[in-house]
Amino acid sequence: MLWFIGVGIYDLSSIGNMILEILAKSDRIYVERFTSPVSDEYMSSLKSLLRNKEVSIAKRWFIEDGRQILKEAKDSNVVLISYGDSLLATTFVELRTRAIREQIAVKVIHGASGIMSVVSECGLQIYKLGKMVTIMDDEQSVISVYNTLFNNLKLNCHTIILTEYRASDDSRIFFLSPNKAIQKLLDIEKSTKYEIINGGTFAIIASRIGFTDQKITCGKVDSLLNTEYGSGPHTIIIPSRLHFTELEAITTIAEVIDEPSDNTETVESIASMMMRKYVPMIRKEITEVRTSTMIMKSNAVNELLDNAECYIDDATDFFDRGKFELAILSIGYADGLTDSIRYQARR
Amino acid sequence: MLWFIGVGIYDLSSIGNMILEILAKSDRIYVERFTSPVSDEYMSSLKSLLRNKEVSIAKRWFIEDGRQILKEAKDSNVVLISYGDSLLATTFVELRTRAIREQIAVKVIHGASGIMSVVSECGLQIYKLGKMVTIMDDEQSVISVYNTLFNNLKLNCHTIILTEYRASDDSRIFFLSPNKAIQKLLDIEKSTKYEIINGGTFAIIASRIGFTDQKITCGKVDSLLNTEYGSGPHTIIIPSRLHFTELEAITTIAEVIDEPSDNTETVESIASMMMRKYVPMIRKEITEVRTSTMIMKSNAVNELLDNAECYIDDATDFFDRGKFELAILSIGYADGLTDSIRYQARR
Repeated sequence: MLWFIGVGIYDLSSIGNMILEILAKSDRIYVERFTSPVSDEYMSSLKSLLRNKEVSIAKRWFIEDGRQILKEAKDSNVVLISYGDSLLATTFVELRTRAIREQIAVKVIHGASGIMSVVSECGLQIYKLGKMVTIMDDEQSVISVYNTLFNNLKLNCHTIILTEYRASDDSRIFFLSPNKAIQKLLDIEKSTKYEIINGGTFAIIASRIGFTDQKITCGKVDSLLNTEYGSGPHTIIIPSRLHFTELEAITTIAEVIDEPSDNTETVESIASMMMRKYVPMIRKEITEVRTSTMIMKSNAVNELLDNAECYIDDATDFFDRGKFELAILSIGYADGLTDSIRYQARR
Repeated sequence: MLWFIGVGIYDLSSIGNMILEILAKSDRIYVERFTSPVSDEYMSSLKSLLRNKEVSIAKRWFIEDGRQILKEAKDSNVVLISYGDSLLATTFVELRTRAIREQIAVKVIHGASGIMSVVSECGLQIYKLGKMVTIMDDEQSVISVYNTLFNNLKLNCHTIILTEYRASDDSRIFFLSPNKAIQKLLDIEKSTKYEIINGGTFAIIASRIGFTDQKITCGKVDSLLNTEYGSGPHTIIIPSRLHFTELEAITTIAEVIDEPSDNTETVESIASMMMRKYVPMIRKEITEVRTSTMIMKSNAVNELLDNAECYIDDATDFFDRGKFELAILSIGYADGLTDSIRYQARR
């Protein structure tokens, strides 16, 4: 039997009888710390709690290879412990699939997930989360984070950016600092110029959520770059437009260096810029044609002008309902109708 | 003091000393079951565990009003228990904000989240989750789910659709069935025609995750519509293109009615749908005007037709370069020019 157990984000005292009994009946306990930061203290309290059990650290290659652990699970009770929720890493999902295919009984116990805890600690609405990303110390990953941020902001979704965590085989731990991560995004902005992140972008840094010294800091990127966050894990959140309950929550619970601002303002611009430019322009042109004494107003011309006005109204309506493509198509059509009349009149 | 405690997705045996001690020291315990399904069995085992404590159900109006609970939390220990993770619902985030502003000490304990558990039980990668939605029994919510599904598929993201859960004041529980929810999406498809969901769409239904009778079913929408899922909670997942580890996982752990297929294949961006429709249509109209013996071709008309053709070329070019808004604006403009001539000729 193979158990996947997520022990949540707190110390051992958060574990109930359900898990304690599984551990007591187990023959072998593995703890993984390559996807999630299980501390030395946690390891030693686990070992002293289970003094008569073999508790060992499962390295990445050991899980990826999997043969040993699957062999053990065939005729004994093996437990694989993860920090946070269980099974969130692909490596474990694969191991579970292999186990089931080899007819090994598998059970999963879920714990409090670090990611969900960050979201709710910050008072953000889960329905406003966009695609999640991890930022790492290489350029390709940063470009992918940048593109995700762009897509999320366009959809008015918050972006959760997990920062790289690495545990080497000798258990030394590396966390990418929020400062470095943000600087990397600013560097990509310099070359890509989608205007989605700059010194004025509002961001939230959630550090060590679930630890006794957890801390949430928020402010403009310029200020956050010059702030110290201490040890990890850190999560960076670049919010989209905050709902007022989110605004109230974040300014109440976080250390607020700068007041929140709306990060979507510069991003949504293409459709809204077009509307801002074309709606008044075409309306003005229609009025000019209507009042001009130089242009013959046949019935057809008057009807076309009425039609153009209807399309401007449609465009505004589509835009308000978030149907940006239809808004642009309608405003382009209204412009074409109006220009056609003006062009023919001018000849 | 006000505690927000998420008790996870299992029975009371999953609660550790950390929470038991908080409960023991508390003066008043509220359990909410309007955002999450706390069963009668859970309530009664909680009451018998805490025989000397007052354990009551907090109704929605009670939390939204909040005055009573905040008053109690000012000079006693009050605990608010939620199923799953704590603080995911806006109502609780607001209550926490008010408490902190009224200088009441607040602490939060996170439990295993139902949503994250669904994701990992199904073997899906969290990095592939798009915006999450809840489908309810009214048309506006279904349209919003449909639009989210469309946006997520375009970005190759999975869509988690939570199904409506309601607990009335007399504790009767209502879950929207996956069958009804899917049928509602198909109805919207019929009128909207973005071709994002049809009988062949591959979907996953996760039922009662964390309960002893949890069940995961997957297959094409047509098959899923004719399947019984029993009691809730249910989650519907419409996956985007599945990674091979996700494919292997879902086909191993779920009841597979039909083999998975790629839902992103039929999804086309609105811009590309518009281009596919309008480019040939306007070109055909221009040719018709040019070859018609019924329409007087003044120089102005010929020049306008040339102009419309240039704008079609521009639109194609913008589209190829990923400048979708400019492509749509140009195609709308070309359409307006052409229609104006056709309209005047017809009169």
